[in-house]
Formats: sequence, C-alpha cells, structure tokens
Amino acid sequence: MTVRAAVAGASGYAGGELLRLLLVHPEVEIGALTGNSNAGQRLGALQPHLLPLADRVLRETTAEVLAGHDVVFLALPHGQSAAVAEQLGPDVLVVDMGADFRLKDAVDWERFYGSAHAGTWPYGLPELPGGRAALEGSKRIAVPGCYPTAVSLALFPAYAAQLAEPEAVIVAASGTSGAGKAPKPHLLGSEVMGSMSPYGVGGVHRHTPEMIQNLSAAAGERVSVSFTPTLAPMPRGILATCSARARPGVTAESVREAYAKAFADEPFVHLLPEGQWPATASVYGSNAVHVQVAYDADARRIVVISAIDNLAKGTAGGAVQSMNIALGLDETTGLSTIGVAP
Amino acid sequence: MTVRAAVAGASGYAGGELLRLLLVHPEVEIGALTGNSNAGQRLGALQPHLLPLADRVLRETTAEVLAGHDVVFLALPHGQSAAVAEQLGPDVLVVDMGADFRLKDAVDWERFYGSAHAGTWPYGLPELPGGRAALEGSKRIAVPGCYPTAVSLALFPAYAAQLAEPEAVIVAASGTSGAGKAPKPHLLGSEVMGSMSPYGVGGVHRHTPEMIQNLSAAAGERVSVSFTPTLAPMPRGILATCSARARPGVTAESVREAYAKAFADEPFVHLLPEGQWPATASVYGSNAVHVQVAYDADARRIVVISAIDNLAKGTAGGAVQSMNIALGLDETTGLSTIGVAP
Amino acid sequence: MTVRAAVAGASGYAGGELLRLLLVHPEVEIGALTGNSNAGQRLGALQPHLLPLADRVLRETTAEVLAGHDVVFLALPHGQSAAVAEQLGPDVLVVDMGADFRLKDAVDWERFYGSAHAGTWPYGLPELPGGRAALEGSKRIAVPGCYPTAVSLALFPAYAAQLAEPEAVIVAASGTSGAGKAPKPHLLGSEVMGSMSPYGVGGVHRHTPEMIQNLSAAAGERVSVSFTPTLAPMPRGILATCSARARPGVTAESVREAYAKAFADEPFVHLLPEGQWPATASVYGSNAVHVQVAYDADARRIVVISAIDNLAKGTAGGAVQSMNIALGLDETTGLSTIGVAP
Amino acid sequence: MTVRAAVAGASGYAGGELLRLLLVHPEVEIGALTGNSNAGQRLGALQPHLLPLADRVLRETTAEVLAGHDVVFLALPHGQSAAVAEQLGPDVLVVDMGADFRLKDAVDWERFYGSAHAGTWPYGLPELPGGRAALEGSKRIAVPGCYPTAVSLALFPAYAAQLAEPEAVIVAASGTSGAGKAPKPHLLGSEVMGSMSPYGVGGVHRHTPEMIQNLSAAAGERVSVSFTPTLAPMPRGILATCSARARPGVTAESVREAYAKAFADEPFVHLLPEGQWPATASVYGSNAVHVQVAYDADARRIVVISAIDNLAKGTAGGAVQSMNIALGLDETTGLSTIGVAP
Repeated sequence: MTVRAAVAGASGYAGGELLRLLLVHPEVEIGALTGNSNAGQRLGALQPHLLPLADRVLRETTAEVLAGHDVVFLALPHGQSAAVAEQLGPDVLVVDMGADFRLKDAVDWERFYGSAHAGTWPYGLPELPGGRAALEGSKRIAVPGCYPTAVSLALFPAYAAQLAEPEAVIVAASGTSGAGKAPKPHLLGSEVMGSMSPYGVGGVHRHTPEMIQNLSAAAGERVSVSFTPTLAPMPRGILATCSARARPGVTAESVREAYAKAFADEPFVHLLPEGQWPATASVYGSNAVHVQVAYDADARRIVVISAIDNLAKGTAGGAVQSMNIALGLDETTGLSTIGVAP
Repeated sequence: MTVRAAVAGASGYAGGELLRLLLVHPEVEIGALTGNSNAGQRLGALQPHLLPLADRVLRETTAEVLAGHDVVFLALPHGQSAAVAEQLGPDVLVVDMGADFRLKDAVDWERFYGSAHAGTWPYGLPELPGGRAALEGSKRIAVPGCYPTAVSLALFPAYAAQLAEPEAVIVAASGTSGAGKAPKPHLLGSEVMGSMSPYGVGGVHRHTPEMIQNLSAAAGERVSVSFTPTLAPMPRGILATCSARARPGVTAESVREAYAKAFADEPFVHLLPEGQWPATASVYGSNAVHVQVAYDADARRIVVISAIDNLAKGTAGGAVQSMNIALGLDETTGLSTIGVAP
Repeated sequence: MTVRAAVAGASGYAGGELLRLLLVHPEVEIGALTGNSNAGQRLGALQPHLLPLADRVLRETTAEVLAGHDVVFLALPHGQSAAVAEQLGPDVLVVDMGADFRLKDAVDWERFYGSAHAGTWPYGLPELPGGRAALEGSKRIAVPGCYPTAVSLALFPAYAAQLAEPEAVIVAASGTSGAGKAPKPHLLGSEVMGSMSPYGVGGVHRHTPEMIQNLSAAAGERVSVSFTPTLAPMPRGILATCSARARPGVTAESVREAYAKAFADEPFVHLLPEGQWPATASVYGSNAVHVQVAYDADARRIVVISAIDNLAKGTAGGAVQSMNIALGLDETTGLSTIGVAP
Repeated sequence: MTVRAAVAGASGYAGGELLRLLLVHPEVEIGALTGNSNAGQRLGALQPHLLPLADRVLRETTAEVLAGHDVVFLALPHGQSAAVAEQLGPDVLVVDMGADFRLKDAVDWERFYGSAHAGTWPYGLPELPGGRAALEGSKRIAVPGCYPTAVSLALFPAYAAQLAEPEAVIVAASGTSGAGKAPKPHLLGSEVMGSMSPYGVGGVHRHTPEMIQNLSAAAGERVSVSFTPTLAPMPRGILATCSARARPGVTAESVREAYAKAFADEPFVHLLPEGQWPATASVYGSNAVHVQVAYDADARRIVVISAIDNLAKGTAGGAVQSMNIALGLDETTGLSTIGVAP
C-alpha cells in the first residue's frame, strides 16, 4: 500500500515531528506541505533537521493544495480544522492534531476554548478501553493532547480496575516544544533554561476536560482532576506524576497486577521493572510510554508516573499510530520504541 | 558584633553556598574550613567561584580545628553531626545543615534513616508558627531539608487556617545540586540535561516525615503527605506543587486572604500578585520564597506553588537566617531577596 | 556620597542586571526607571527576581523623567543614546550601555552599524592600558560590548608585551541573554537548549571593529581579528578562546609572566593557577574575569581563555565599575568577585 | 545478507548509540553484548531507551562470547582493543571505536597516549580523499575520533584545493557524552549545566595528531593545528569552528566552489545554502554533517563550521557507515540524515 499524505502546518513543531516520522514510514509518500505565514519558503530554512525534505517549498493551506491525498494531517491553530476538513470530502482520512474534535461535551468545549463546538471525532488513543475499535476504518481522527496522552495512559488502568477513588491529582512537567514555535518572551531560552515554572494552575488548562473525559470513561463515573502543568528546561518530554486515593483493600500487588495486565499486549506502553523509574530522556524521539507505579500505604495513594515524548507519542507519533489503525496497517508500522539517549 | 564562623564540609555544594553568603555577611568573619577527603587542598580548586577564599586550605574536621569559633556550621553526611557537636561544648552555636536533629520522632528517624536517633534541635524555619521563638538564643539549630522548606512554607497557612483536609499531595522538582557533589552515573550532565525523572516515589523519601511533622503541627492533627520528588535539568531551584482538598466553605478569597495574612510581615516569603506564578529562576541565589495560590472549585482543591533556591533558602540561606535569630541579629542581615536572572 | 541613578531601559536584560547591582551598591539610590513599550507596568511583572523593586512602575524615557539624577544609565537600542544624552546636560554622568559611542573610527561605525557616527566617549574598560585615566572625572562613558570585554582582556597583555603576531583568531561562546529579551524564533528555549550554533561568521559581527580597536591600541600596530561568535545553551556567560601566533623567542614562561604582571593589581581580572581552566559558571553573577594562558609550542600559538558573565562584567558590572572611577569612588564599590555556583 | 554483530562495551554511550543504530539496520542481527563491570546486568537497567533490547543480559568480554559473529564492534577503553582483536581471527570484521589503531605514527601515539603503538588500521572516514577505497573489503576498521571527524570534514576541502595555509586554528564545543559515562565530578549535571569550559588546551588533546594526520594528507604537506576543545552544556553534538589563513588569490567564490564540489556526491555531508549556519540540534541523532563556509576578507581567513552528532556520525554512525562499505553494502544502509529536533 502506498499512502499519499499531506501535512497542513508543516513549519511548526508538531508538523516537523510528523514529517520526521513519515519520512521513515514504509507505506507513506509525503505529498503537499503547507504553512500559511511561511508559504513560499524552503522547508530547509524552517526545519533544517529534515534534510531529505530541505528543498520542498511550503504552499498555502487550501483545498486545492490538499486535494488528491489519501491522508491529510492538520497541524493548525485551534478552530481552523473544521473548515479545512469539510472541503476534503468524506473519503479522505483527516487526522487533526489540534484540539477541535477531542471533546464530546459541547459545554466543556465552550467553557475551555471560548468558541462554538465543531463536533467530536474518533479519539486517537488506541490503548484506552475500546480505543482501537473506534479507529478502525475511520475517516476522521482527533489526536489527543500531549498531557492527556501521558495522564490517561498512566491512570486509566487504576480506574478501569476500580482501584482508585474518583479524584485524581496530577502534576506534569513538559518540555518547551509543547508551547509551540511562536516566539513569546516567557519561552525564550534565557527565561526557561535553569527554571521550572507552572502555568494554567487551578483547573484552567484546556487539557483538563479531556483528561476527565478519558478517566471518567474508564471509571464508569465522573472523575475529578486537579491538574497542574509545569514548564521544564528541556525541549521535549512530559513527565506526569499522577495519583489517586486507593479504594479500600488495594495493595501494592493488586496495583502492579492491574498495570501489568493492562499493558501486557501494548506495543508502545511499557511498565518498567520494579525499582526502575521513567525518565523523559529514555523516550526522546520514540513512540514509547514508560510507566511505573507505587502504592503509598501511609498516604493510601496510588502513584503512577509516565514519561512520553510530547511531540512523538504525545502528538505526531500518536497521529501515525492511529492512522495505521484507521488504514488497516499494522499499528506499529514506521514507529519505534527506541529513544535517542543520552 | 563580629561572629567568627567555621564551616565543616566546605567542599560540597551546601558548604560552598554557605561560604558565598557568609562572605557578604557584615557581622561574620570566616574562620576554619574543613573537608575530610579534600583536606589539604586549596578552596580555589574546589570552589573556583569563591575567589576571595581561593587561597584558603581545607583542614581536617576535628574538634581542635573547629575550636575557638562563635558559630560552627556542619555540612556533613548524615550521622556525623552528633559526634562533632558534642566536642564543641554548649556555648558554641552549632548549626547542623544535615538531617540528624530535624525529626522529633525517633521511630520516624529510625524508619527513614536506618540508624539511632541523635536527638532533636530547635528547627530552623522561623516562618512556621512559633518558629522564631524556638530559635532565639538557641545554641543548637537543625536546618530544615530543602524540600520541607519549600513545602512547609507553601502549605502551613492553609493548615493553620483550617482550610484544608489533612491529606496533602506534593510533587516537587529540584535542581541537581540537591543531590550533592558526589559523582554518580545518574547525576551526570549527559543523563540529566533534557530529562525529568522521579525518585523516592511512594512515600519513601526521607523528607516526607519532616513535612508531616511541620504540617501536622500547623494543623493540630496528623496530616498525611503523598510526596513525589523529581529531578529537573537545572543546577538549582525547587518548584513545589502542593495541594489539598478544601474544607467545606472555602473560597478563592478565603484562601488568598489566609496566605496574604500569613506572609504579610515575612521578609523572605512573598505572595505574588494574582496572575503571576513562581519561577525558580526568580529566586536563583536569593533567600526569597515566591508563593502563589489557587482554588480549583471543580476539583475542590487548594493548590499552592512555591519556588525556592534549594541551596540558598533551602539550605545555606535558611541556616544564616536562623543563625541571625539565634545570635540576636536582625533576621535579614547578610541575606537578599534579589535573584540572579535570567 | 549618595548617588542618585536613573536607568533608561529597565525592562531588558542589561537594565535588569544593572538594577540587581545597583540595589546592593552602598552609595547609589535608585531613581527613575523607564522603558518605552513597557511604560506603566510594575517592574515586578517584568523582572520578578528584583523583589525590592517589584512595586516600582516604569515610566516613559523622556528628559523630564531622567532629570534630577547624578547618573543616568542608558540601556537603549542602538542609535537612541545620543538624542537622550544631549538633553541631559554636561554635568550629569551618562553611562551608555549601548554601542553608540564605543568606536573611534566613523568609517568603521558606518560600515558595521549602517548609520551616522554619533561620536566617541571615554571607553569603560579600566584594565586596558590607560583605561582608568580616561575615565576619572569623565561625564560620559561608553560601556564596552560583552565580547570585546572578554576578548580584549584576554589578549591585550600578549600584544602590550609584544609577544604575539598581529593576527588574532577568536571563537567565543555566549549565553543567550547576550541576544536580548526581544522574542525571536531562533532564541526560543526549544531551539537553543541542547544546541550550539554560530552567527555573524566571517568578520561581520559588530563587535569585531571594537576588538580591533582595543588590541591595535595595545599592540601599537593594526591587529587583524577573525572573530566567530557562537550561541551556547546557557542563559549567561561568555567563554572566549583567543589565540595568536607567537613572535620568535616566546616561551610558555614569558607568556605566563606577562599575564601575571598585567593582572597582578587588578581587582577583577584573575589569572588562574596553572592547570586550572576558566568556566563560565565560576563567574556567574560576578564581576570577575577568569583567565588562563597556554603556549602551544607545536602550533607556535599563544592560547588565552577568558570567562566572564556577559551581563555582569560584560555589561552592567563594567558600567558600575566605570561609574565608580568616574565618580571618584573606590573602583570595586558594590561589585563582587564571588560567583553563584553551581 | 544477514550480518551478525557483537558489541563489546555495550553499556557505555558509544555502545548504546551503536545499538540504537544497529536496531534499525536492515541487514544486521544483534548478537552478543558485553560489558565487563556490568556483566550480568539487564541492558534495560543500563540503556533504558533501547526498549527492544531491555531483556538482553550483558556478558563478559571474552573471545568465546565474541566468537561466531560476522562483525565485532569494540567500544572499549584505550589499549584494550588489540588483545581482543587478535583473538578474533582475520576473517571477522573488527570495528574499533577506540583510538588504538587510528594513528600512523608510532611516535605520535606514544607521545599522546603514553603506551606502545598497537598498529594502524584502515581509517573509517570515507569522505576523505581515498577514504572509501581504503575500507572496501577491509577486515579491520579504526573509527575516527569525534573531533577529528568534525574537523577533518570541515577543513580537508580547503587543503585538498590548496586554498589554505598549513596552519589551522580550531575551537570545538562538544556535548558531555563525548566525555563518557564514567562518573567524574566535573561532568556532574550541576557543574556542566549553564557552563562552558575548555580542556586539553595548548595542543595536548589526544585528537590533535589525528587531525594533523588527516589534514596533512589532504594538503600534501604538514599542517599544524591549534586545537581547543570546550565542554558545552548539552548531551550531544559537536560544533567545530575551523579557520586557516587563505592563500593568495582566494575569494569567497573559490572557497564556496571547492566545498560545493567536495561534498556534491556525499550522502551525509551537506553544505548548507548561503546564509544558513549549522546548529548541532539539526543533526541530533543523525549521521548528517552540516557545513558552512565563509571567507573573511579583512582577516584573510577561510572559516568553516561543521556540526555533527558526536555519538552518531562522530562515533557509532561513522562505524556503521564504514562497516557498510567494508561489507559491500550500500554505504547509507540503516543510516539517516534526519535529526531529532527541536
């Protein structure tokens, strides 16, 4: 099978990472690349690490340019995907790496994004219960947010196994690429190197309702989420520290067993051996998720730590994984669990 | 007043930071410097940033060397302070920057440190309720751990004002200097740059009982603590993200009011204006603590973030502040709230 | 003496560092702070590390606002200093931290800066031959560029002692704060962390003629300079690696002797003991310059390495040092040779 | 073809990077992995980023363990390769990633390494004049040092085209992984983050004679090299700034033309478009070399900058590239010019 893929928004970090992955995907041929403010520029000037594509020129994001592909990836600012997707027709696989179609609840969408809800597409996190079935043969995919990927994978087994009370507390550290490539003062290297800082504290981060949606589905009841994201002095990676009060009767063994079972057949999610803890460096550039669990008997909390690459499994790798499923390819095609370290 | 001060353990990070502060303390004259494995070496070879002391030579840590000083600071490995302190006599002010005398509960000590409890000294965190009174005129001071400093200052007002349920969840990121100067593979620059990783997960970190001790004292009941420390790719700084379920009736306003009141007269602890969040870079090299609070009404949790410099307010700065109180000096003498940024 | 000082351009990195230093200067009282695009904002929102000035509000940069001070520091974009200085009158000490008055040669100025030459002011690098005399009692000071500070101090002794051929090759690595606070894509943390890159290669960097000016003056003949600046993944610091072919008869001993003599009485420039090499971390936040020399007999080159803090000795510290001389204060007043490390 | 490969020294950074590359090499099957001090441990505990090999157990480095492979890679400390290679027999391809067989001159070896010269093997830098021919069919390969790779590729075209005087000045910044995984105080994250420092200054670094060997061969006369390595706060990457005085008649055009011609058919070495400069981030994890040249007419110097990944093209990637040639495979098999950025 040769899949012809276009990328709308090829000049940003998500688009660049997607191209890095598509370049080694054996079934994909890279077609049109677009980028509005950068249209007309060589990709080599914008993404110098993608040497094989250096002489490609970015085009405008229009229906004409995106036509004639089997898959169109959208790496666009929030709110722009619906208009583009409509023009592409129902037979093209559209993979939206933005937020527009992630949430099921229109009220949540409007509260957190401040605009009209565009709709809901099949959600690209195959590891969730029922996740793969929802993607098979689909022509539309909503790629999860980077934090919800790390957090949902860390906590869904505890909720699915009814081990945890429905109140999760999550603190996650993200590399700066999660904040995008648009230059802002607080994202300058001078500001972020040597510094940790929080943002979106107190339940206001837009990824919060997405986590609630995923964890509540696993638990079968509404799970409240206290989520604090922090900006870490590194370009990539998310380390999510997630915990929830244990239900009565939970033991260290029952927790570990639930996680071992949940991830036993997962090609990308890996429960580390006891005593070994995740580090974001170990998943740098890879689609792997490293997870470890602990049961704190004193505090009666289940603590789960996950590490992902926010651009890979957290965005572009997750997009490719879901595309593979939608197209009927082996889910792991073109994806790797090998990190670049040190 | 001229205070003659000796530093036992001058070659490490805590000792080096202490010397950096003592060099600009107007009432202190720096006396003997010791360092066992490095005895005989020039300080300039070990702490090249301390240029005015470059030609000082480290001596052995013995009672003779440490005799004849008004203050002796101990920056020694755990378990070595008691023996040294005994030899110094009751009239010398001994400031222990290690853990030996921090805990009141011998059972806790033995469980977390695996050795016999040496005793309990007045605790060097003046901002806690009753903290200053305990230090005035004291001849022995136990300097708090770096994490307990950041965490206790972040959460005690919520507990003292009876705003929070007695179950705190804390995730803190620390710069690598908190792990000391002894070379270990996981602390290599190649390993830590670009990586976040947790350690001591599940309630096993030694600073946990110290936090419980402080928060329980403020609350008037036992507070359980779920504490996860993480190693961040920066040399200095702690960002502590602390939260607890709010008691009924708590509002964003009541939380903010409690914190404004708690820190109103504090020279070093600063509640940031609403909308501004702490960053470790802002307290780099300073004794300041930046704090911000939020009330997450959906999750019904109070979230408090504090940023400190782990070596300054978290260790050496806290030691100098407590020394000032013990000696009857103005508490802020020689200390600064000005950070080195960017 | 109380010196009342105004700072025009207080919101940038140079202005912020200057304020950090002025806050601890015993003879200075900080007066008006200005910043055009940020006028009206609290300094606490822009420079959160300067806690004692957090409630100061930035004003417009006008002659009225800057009037009534003994010293006015200008931290303005190139080309703006002359107009402001003219309005301040001849009795006010004006210290320009920009480039406008550094070069003596109008042709050089026009070639490298592309505008009319504003003039030449006494040059604020007291360690150069005749440097102090030029500053004593002066009412105008041109603060050197950060690279020229590091490079001129590294190489002038070799040229003054006629040890080196008049062709210097310099490669310097700078922290990102040298590039300023204006957000640009290539200065994003995501781009600079984990990356080294050059810029201004091939003699086109604006600091090149300034280095030539200083080294030629020391040598008594025109010295050509090949200068390559590189951007390093750190917020502060310059490491300058400077070399020149040795004249016949030069030995390792004669080189070392010349440097020891040149810096013997310098309060801020320190020739490290043999075998110890400069590191930018050792001068972090300090006004010290660490220098080391080697003679490579095989390549017949003198190699000199210097480390400075680009914002401190390289900009704001150098400005304060020169102000001290101009005002008749002790040159070291309010300045430190103690770095913040690790 | 299936090539069965063993790796002696699989626990270090060079060995780990080699395994990362071999895992995606379509013709290679990974056989025995050894590591003396770590023998008996799971690779997953030592190289957690290599998930597909996590359950492999390291064995002792013995002839028995290494027997039965088509290729044996040696990533051993200096001086150990000869003894191992002898035992492997003449029909096995032995690729030495250490220094033992790089130098042709026994006197140079003894001066810089202080031991007896083991011999000289075909040198694994195919891009040098005659480089490929020397490797075809060879059963022994000496992989170049990381700095000599970056520097030789940057400067050989200038020398081969007789554009430069035989005196090169090189300053290179390396990521910390170049210094290996053995824990040493100056390599701690606390020390290297935020700091640049030189080492091996004045012609004493062991890679100097290797550069001289390569450049002299290209020039047809002895080239002297002034080489200063610096340690940069990043895990990977080398940025080499290389310059040499231009011979009379050289122009910017003639320099560019020589480089364009030298690299026209090279699959991994890429002369960037004019105006674009190399950054180590762009070659992170890739086998690509990014090069840019400038002619500084004022200083009359040719300035060449190259960026490589020290572990990839600088060590393990170069090893695989040379293995491909020796085995008659396409030179690019299993190697990539795509970097992981940001």
